[in-house]
Amino acid sequence: MELKEIGRIYSPYKTVKEAPRQGKISDKFCEIEIFPAYETALLHADEGRYYVVLYFAHEADRTALQTVPPWAKEPYGVFASRSPHRPNPINLCVVKLVRREKNRLFVIGLDAIDGSGLIDIKPYVRELDEAEA
Amino acid sequence: MELKEIGRIYSPYKTVKEAPRQGKISDKFCEIEIFPAYETALLHADEGRYYVVLYFAHEADRTALQTVPPWAKEPYGVFASRSPHRPNPINLCVVKLVRREKNRLFVIGLDAIDGSGLIDIKPYVRELDEAEA
Repeated sequence: MELKEIGRIYSPYKTVKEAPRQGKISDKFCEIEIFPAYETALLHADEGRYYVVLYFAHEADRTALQTVPPWAKEPYGVFASRSPHRPNPINLCVVKLVRREKNRLFVIGLDAIDGSGLIDIKPYVRELDEAEA
Repeated sequence: MELKEIGRIYSPYKTVKEAPRQGKISDKFCEIEIFPAYETALLHADEGRYYVVLYFAHEADRTALQTVPPWAKEPYGVFASRSPHRPNPINLCVVKLVRREKNRLFVIGLDAIDGSGLIDIKPYVRELDEAEA
C-alpha cells in the first residue's frame, strides 16, 4: 500500500527526544502545511474544531513488535501500546485547529517531530470517535 | 511512504454498498486476522477493551478532493469530512475487542468491507483520543 505525502508538519520538536510523550499534553503550536494540490480538500475545515491527524513517524523502528511502555514494567505488544515504533508507524493525534491561513493549519496537541509527512486529516466526530471505555 | 499489510479483515460486508455508513452504528461482528509474523505484537491486547483500527479502503477514489456528505447539501473538502474517498484512504474505526483467539480478533464497530487490508491497531486511550469538542 503506497501512501502520498499530502503535506508537511513543522513543529518545535526537532528530535524524538524533544517531542512530548503525547501530543495531548502539549500546549505548543505546530504548523501543518497542506500541499497546494490538496488545498481544495480543506473546504469547511474550520478554526476552533478538532481534527484527527495521521502522520508518518519516519524515524520509528518498524521492526519493533514489543515494547515496555513508560507506565509499565513488563513488555507489551506494540498493538497493545501507543508506541510510535510499530510495523506501520502511523501516528494519530486529536488536535485543535486554532488558526487557518489558506493551506496552513496552526494546531495544538500534536507530537510530531519537525518535518514529519502528513498522511490524512479528518474531522473529530464525538459520536464516532468516543468509546465507552 | 510504503505500508505493509499486517493483517486482513473479514466482514459481513461484501461491497461498499453493504457496509454501514459508519462502523459505530453496526452491531455485527468482524474478524481481524493478524498475520503470524506480527502475532507477538498482540501481547496484552485484551478482550473487552477498545481499539483504534486503521485499515486501507482499497476501493476508494483517491482522486476525490471534495464530496457532499450525507448530512449536508453542499460540498465539503474530504479533509473536513469522513468520506472514505480521499488521497490516502486510511479509514479509522474505534472498535470493541469482544473475543480474541490467538491472532484472530473478533470485534464490533468496524465498517470495513470484506478483504480490507489491516494497517494498524492501537489501544483506545480516553485521555488521548477524546476531545472537548
